[in-house]
Amino acid sequence: MPSSAFYALIAGAGAGTGTAVALRFAQAYPVVLLARSASSYAPAVDAVRAAGGAAIGIVADASDPAAVDAAFERIARELPGARLAAAVYNAFAGFAVKPFLELRPEDLTTNLATGVHGLFFFAQKTLPQLLAAAPTAPHPPTLIVTGATASLRGSARFASIAAAKFGQRGLTQSLAREFGPRGVHVAYAIVDGGIDTPGAKGVVMNNGVEDGKIRPEAIADNYWHLHTQHRSAFTQELDLRPFVEKF
Amino acid sequence: MPSSAFYALIAGAGAGTGTAVALRFAQAYPVVLLARSASSYAPAVDAVRAAGGAAIGIVADASDPAAVDAAFERIARELPGARLAAAVYNAFAGFAVKPFLELRPEDLTTNLATGVHGLFFFAQKTLPQLLAAAPTAPHPPTLIVTGATASLRGSARFASIAAAKFGQRGLTQSLAREFGPRGVHVAYAIVDGGIDTPGAKGVVMNNGVEDGKIRPEAIADNYWHLHTQHRSAFTQELDLRPFVEKF
Amino acid sequence: MPSSAFYALIAGAGAGTGTAVALRFAQAYPVVLLARSASSYAPAVDAVRAAGGAAIGIVADASDPAAVDAAFERIARELPGARLAAAVYNAFAGFAVKPFLELRPEDLTTNLATGVHGLFFFAQKTLPQLLAAAPTAPHPPTLIVTGATASLRGSARFASIAAAKFGQRGLTQSLAREFGPRGVHVAYAIVDGGIDTPGAKGVVMNNGVEDGKIRPEAIADNYWHLHTQHRSAFTQELDLRPFVEKF
Amino acid sequence: MPSSAFYALIAGAGAGTGTAVALRFAQAYPVVLLARSASSYAPAVDAVRAAGGAAIGIVADASDPAAVDAAFERIARELPGARLAAAVYNAFAGFAVKPFLELRPEDLTTNLATGVHGLFFFAQKTLPQLLAAAPTAPHPPTLIVTGATASLRGSARFASIAAAKFGQRGLTQSLAREFGPRGVHVAYAIVDGGIDTPGAKGVVMNNGVEDGKIRPEAIADNYWHLHTQHRSAFTQELDLRPFVEKF
Repeated sequence: MPSSAFYALIAGAGAGTGTAVALRFAQAYPVVLLARSASSYAPAVDAVRAAGGAAIGIVADASDPAAVDAAFERIARELPGARLAAAVYNAFAGFAVKPFLELRPEDLTTNLATGVHGLFFFAQKTLPQLLAAAPTAPHPPTLIVTGATASLRGSARFASIAAAKFGQRGLTQSLAREFGPRGVHVAYAIVDGGIDTPGAKGVVMNNGVEDGKIRPEAIADNYWHLHTQHRSAFTQELDLRPFVEKF
Repeated sequence: MPSSAFYALIAGAGAGTGTAVALRFAQAYPVVLLARSASSYAPAVDAVRAAGGAAIGIVADASDPAAVDAAFERIARELPGARLAAAVYNAFAGFAVKPFLELRPEDLTTNLATGVHGLFFFAQKTLPQLLAAAPTAPHPPTLIVTGATASLRGSARFASIAAAKFGQRGLTQSLAREFGPRGVHVAYAIVDGGIDTPGAKGVVMNNGVEDGKIRPEAIADNYWHLHTQHRSAFTQELDLRPFVEKF
Repeated sequence: MPSSAFYALIAGAGAGTGTAVALRFAQAYPVVLLARSASSYAPAVDAVRAAGGAAIGIVADASDPAAVDAAFERIARELPGARLAAAVYNAFAGFAVKPFLELRPEDLTTNLATGVHGLFFFAQKTLPQLLAAAPTAPHPPTLIVTGATASLRGSARFASIAAAKFGQRGLTQSLAREFGPRGVHVAYAIVDGGIDTPGAKGVVMNNGVEDGKIRPEAIADNYWHLHTQHRSAFTQELDLRPFVEKF
Repeated sequence: MPSSAFYALIAGAGAGTGTAVALRFAQAYPVVLLARSASSYAPAVDAVRAAGGAAIGIVADASDPAAVDAAFERIARELPGARLAAAVYNAFAGFAVKPFLELRPEDLTTNLATGVHGLFFFAQKTLPQLLAAAPTAPHPPTLIVTGATASLRGSARFASIAAAKFGQRGLTQSLAREFGPRGVHVAYAIVDGGIDTPGAKGVVMNNGVEDGKIRPEAIADNYWHLHTQHRSAFTQELDLRPFVEKF
């Protein structure tokens, strides 16, 4: 990859939001994609390269601190001297919708691992880099976290994921208050609706209305907008939902 | 003004946010500016024309239904056949920060007139036009309302304005739920900080930190972003605040 | 009425919540009931007297400042020297659930009159009395306001009442922040469900489940609890809903 | 301990809130106290017995499922046939207020263990018992969880505890929606202020104003009130703060 002053980093680079965000940010920066397996990030890497951008995929489980450490060491080798312009935490590992008394402790542990611990490690690694980039970056360095309906609402049968996403929101809000005044923009996007990913093709939402699922490209446009907001007008939290979604 | 298929309408077209929003939307549409006096909208009209755009100023108090009616009749005459692409409710008439027991009934009446009644009249006039524009408009027709810190928080000594801005938020949220599924995007922008208007030049905020006041152009960029969001990913509410603002 | 050191005042003294609250507070204080007509407060007055308590009914429209003034003058004559221990703002004038474009300006005006203006007048009259009672009252003097689902959520077709109840919540919150430190407890009770009033007998809610409507006596118990909270642990806001209510 | 039809269970039975809640509920039920060490629950057990009540202390770390299992086995042996009327989750293990980049992974793990995992285990053990008690209990069986300022607000330097307390709130809210319709009352009390515990004697809060710290007995009165609410008017969430607290 050619030397570049700045790069973008996306954790959770699957075929939907991750790929769309990678494509959008790759218009400006080389992008590094973290995923739990090479097959997860492959579509994003291929798409970026096909569009003429630069992409590196790295296998790393966001909730494994050693794996995250190793990923950052590899980034330092592959992109020597590059500063981090934007970091997106989009890791997602699914969740069980079931009666509370049928949840196993592992359901909770898994949701918290991806939703909270993973963001904690990711933020501890990226925030120092984002702080370092602040004086010279073209836009305020940005940490964007992908939230969900369960970030705002603990619905019946969503106990485990609600614990994780509420927790993620609280963590993100605290980071925004601490790092905003130091020039780093921390934003939380509450994706309140089903996303039109390849995996959701067969799932009918909002009665099958056109645009009743959120287009990944629309999410990506919003993330890019958050990244390019002037520092006199940072958004900490915004919701994104299909025009027909009940809320 | 030359014939044009679509236009934008801004109520509350003062020298700060109103002018910046007018300039931004005038890059795409002729803009119509409503203000309580010609001297209020003059800077916006002049700025748009100087930038090569088209602008019409109309004197109308947003909280006076007869004046609002007359304004819309004039728009129909001046822009025959034009459809409404975006309407921005930015009317503001100041407010008193003082102990509750010193507030006069007129303080409350004035705040509700601008914050709630005016939005009610404006929305009743613009929503039918926005609905009519939906099938052919380049972006989902949009109603954007300017909120404030007092929309979310009833601080001590802010009783009257909190009543008005909370009320405005409730009204806007209801409109979003009713008109979103019909293709009209209703969004509320919570401007949580002082704006760097000409009138605020002498007011020190956030210890005078550069960008410690919100740039009107930054608000305008966010309003344009809201207007151009894809309908599969509408934002209903977002906050905007300086990076150094306490919240 | 015999002389008494303290009294309670209830605005909006209809056959449901108003009567139940009157009965509960009449166990400790003489109660004064304000309503728009004598027929509204009559059941409450009769019920209190039948239970051995003392009650005065006064005709006053809470949104008419002259009527409110006259009511307080009459209270001063009838209860000379009595201090105000608790004031409950429970005024309610119904509301229209209909498409926004079918609402008339009068719908909004009516909802704001009862929800916001009336509370404003009531609070300006009662807060000085509550402050005066603070040093000697058996419990922290209390202003309790009755909220509703529409205080928290602007649903489609609820635009007018959402504007009023959101506004009421903002006003109450501001009063809590200003008067709490002066020893007056200002609380907002969000009644999130249908109330089992005489007028609602024929209305089926929650599939007719027993206790699927809120018992007025249960609301009254909560208001009394709020009134008797120790000042080291004031509640500003609580929700009340039937166990089977969706929320 | 004599046989009794119902009992109350308190996890986190320290010298402040835990002891006060134990004393309050012991007026109606034998109480079982869980704490990480016998020295933690000893003051509560002693206080209850001195007041003429019945109390059992059991050592159990709420975040250790095996210890929780063992505790419930012991309860079954010591109180054969007794049904659970009320369960209070008040476990607390302190937290670090420090810059995010100085937090260690263990800080987060510890906060989540007590705030989220422990509540998860406790709820899985107690909810079946509360459901079983519903048909015959004198009041709706109740699960009350102690929240904090950090449940609502992610302040700078509070990242780890905000993650845990937000998560706890989301979990509790989900349980309320699932178990309320089955007759079990799940409530979250947001304790928004310093508590006047023995350990806080030397800590000045609110400028040392009398009642500027929350009295544990006042918290206990509120928990008892929540427990005795009629099921037609359950509170899901309430805040408790000193009258002089800034919020």
